[in-house]
Amino acid sequence: MTTLDTRAPATATPSPAIDPPRRLLMGPGPIDADPRVLRAMSASLVGQYDPVMTQYMAQTQELYRTVFRTTNDATLLVDGTSRAGIEAAIVSLVSPGDRVLVPVFGRFGHLLREIAERAGAEVHVIEREWGTVFPTSELVAALDEVRPHLLALVHGDTSTTVAQPLEEIGAVCRERGVLLYADVTASLGGNTFAMDGWGVDAATAGLQKCLAGPSGSSPVSLSDRAVEVVRRRSSVEAGLRVLTDDDPDAVDRIRSNYLDLGQILEYWGPRRLNHHTEATSMLYAAHECARLLAEEGMDAAVARHALHGSAMVAGLSGLGLRLFGDQAHRMNNVVGVEIPDGIDGEAARAALLRDFAIEIGTSFGPLHGRIWRVGVMGYNARRDTVLTTLAALEHVLRTAGVPVTAGAGVGAALERYADAA
Amino acid sequence: MTTLDTRAPATATPSPAIDPPRRLLMGPGPIDADPRVLRAMSASLVGQYDPVMTQYMAQTQELYRTVFRTTNDATLLVDGTSRAGIEAAIVSLVSPGDRVLVPVFGRFGHLLREIAERAGAEVHVIEREWGTVFPTSELVAALDEVRPHLLALVHGDTSTTVAQPLEEIGAVCRERGVLLYADVTASLGGNTFAMDGWGVDAATAGLQKCLAGPSGSSPVSLSDRAVEVVRRRSSVEAGLRVLTDDDPDAVDRIRSNYLDLGQILEYWGPRRLNHHTEATSMLYAAHECARLLAEEGMDAAVARHALHGSAMVAGLSGLGLRLFGDQAHRMNNVVGVEIPDGIDGEAARAALLRDFAIEIGTSFGPLHGRIWRVGVMGYNARRDTVLTTLAALEHVLRTAGVPVTAGAGVGAALERYADAA
Repeated sequence: MTTLDTRAPATATPSPAIDPPRRLLMGPGPIDADPRVLRAMSASLVGQYDPVMTQYMAQTQELYRTVFRTTNDATLLVDGTSRAGIEAAIVSLVSPGDRVLVPVFGRFGHLLREIAERAGAEVHVIEREWGTVFPTSELVAALDEVRPHLLALVHGDTSTTVAQPLEEIGAVCRERGVLLYADVTASLGGNTFAMDGWGVDAATAGLQKCLAGPSGSSPVSLSDRAVEVVRRRSSVEAGLRVLTDDDPDAVDRIRSNYLDLGQILEYWGPRRLNHHTEATSMLYAAHECARLLAEEGMDAAVARHALHGSAMVAGLSGLGLRLFGDQAHRMNNVVGVEIPDGIDGEAARAALLRDFAIEIGTSFGPLHGRIWRVGVMGYNARRDTVLTTLAALEHVLRTAGVPVTAGAGVGAALERYADAA
Repeated sequence: MTTLDTRAPATATPSPAIDPPRRLLMGPGPIDADPRVLRAMSASLVGQYDPVMTQYMAQTQELYRTVFRTTNDATLLVDGTSRAGIEAAIVSLVSPGDRVLVPVFGRFGHLLREIAERAGAEVHVIEREWGTVFPTSELVAALDEVRPHLLALVHGDTSTTVAQPLEEIGAVCRERGVLLYADVTASLGGNTFAMDGWGVDAATAGLQKCLAGPSGSSPVSLSDRAVEVVRRRSSVEAGLRVLTDDDPDAVDRIRSNYLDLGQILEYWGPRRLNHHTEATSMLYAAHECARLLAEEGMDAAVARHALHGSAMVAGLSGLGLRLFGDQAHRMNNVVGVEIPDGIDGEAARAALLRDFAIEIGTSFGPLHGRIWRVGVMGYNARRDTVLTTLAALEHVLRTAGVPVTAGAGVGAALERYADAA
């Protein structure tokens, strides 16, 4: 036999306990979680089939129906980050060889494309310059040309700060027998979204944006049409079958076990078939995120994001920064601004973090080094966070050599608040 | 156009905040999380590229090197439950058509088989009756017959309460150029495991067993040989590429994006390429779980599980219950006992939960209705939890009509503790 690796195990002194410094997270997410959500996570655990647990699961489903504005029975959590929810929807709805149309107007459109490709789909992409959105007519034309099984698109793409209008496309999809999937990770809770009203068949989200929680749980909802597709491809896990001829494997089996929405539905549904071990603390967090939104009311939450987002826009403009992207389709919860000529964007971001403990966002791909992204969302969609960020940014810009009028950012935001009052 | 679904959105009164009752979770997991782990989760968030965050990520990697007993650079967390880590390892290491050998001796062997099948592998299964393990010679014979790319097996299978000996098989695999993957979800921290010493190429775990945390984060470690396989199949996400000809897609692309260990490695490694948004609160939990184990020492933690597990065995035997499974290979942290003839196992479990707020486990597949599984692990591997469970179970058994000698369970456990003192 060959010699085994005999390198000694690590014997480093254990690290100290975590003790994170206080930050004000004003980037495109994650943002500071609502303290009530963080506290919910430190509640003690219960067993995964404890009646208390199944009751919390049912409440969570009902709460997310409110958040997604749907009556979909199939409303649940996928245990992973928002990206896990995206992949669960796509890999469960798309069989290898299925045609998928992906309109790409930012980074997360590319992600949908990539996930659909890996799921074996025949992916057709239409692209738009980052910062713009598709007119519905372009989507309709592409639907008619490609005739896909699924139209997969991002609602609000934080990489470009704009949101694709979705109000009309659901009806077009239904008429053509096309399933409509929307990634609402960055938009849900801070921008109007009406799953049933708009005819969306599958939507997935995350907690770390307007829902005011930490990343790590992905709320998902499926229409009855979508559930039908998933169920046709589903099978019961081998280790759970008492007899081997019970529930034989589907012919067109979903490629993932972990992200198989058919099995996850059986776990959340009345059969309660064991799948993963539910991430209880993240479920507590997701429950509290949705509960706080439901308590506030979805319209009020959207209005709050619109107000504070517009105050941030006014303030950043007041500081002389040029707004990025199609302002008619700006997301309420994230603002893109061009980095002023001649300054080092990353150095300025680092100074803001070092001196004021405030984080704003960098950007990806074609926008890298060109724009900053400033988030106003979830727990941080507040007046004090907007004004504090603007005051701090004014100092950082001036130190970097950018000519700014003293108080111009905060002043413009205050005017916006006065107008709205 | 067809009419959209106009069912009204749900308008239910928001649920109250969660307020779980106190339980003593003595099943096969999840178990009560250590309060220090729960408190770590309520720490405030930092940005995902904050220097504090990358420092916590590096500490977490180092801590899990201690827990896995490895020097593997590629030691990290997958954001999902233990099952996400299993699928990440298999889908990243196995290309469609690759031969995979899966020895099955319980439910989780069936799970490995199923995940490998869905990854497109040519899966070869050898089976053993639930409650037994494979002699190494049987594994070697199967390796020589199948000549697989990967040998995938469960270390401790909670469904049967026994652990497969792994000390010798790593060397056999290396000699034959076979990769060795071990699912150590249920065993790590409570049973001896030596990743480097045993020549294991990939191991994945969860927090909800001997690590004393909640489900929702999966520690994973890969040997350099395993990393080589993963890197060959990896590519940079489209939305992150500045030029389209930078890092073109690998020919043999990993089928999942979310569970692509190549991309996850680039996120945890020096390039820090954005992938998912790290589940910060779960990372805090995982950090604290490993920190507490490292502080205790891995040998001491295993000895603690062995002591309290053996006291539970003594106590359950004292109550007249017959032990299930090959006792020479019993896991330290979970005990299987046959449900006494003539009583309703589920009713007894329900009574234990209702009257004493104590949960013990049911079982799956061929063992359903035949055995209970009693966990002694993580935060609950303690003298008081063992004695309390035995005292309560005595009452429940007597009420159900099982003849038990008063104090026989607690007494036998106390004797075991006295012997060990």
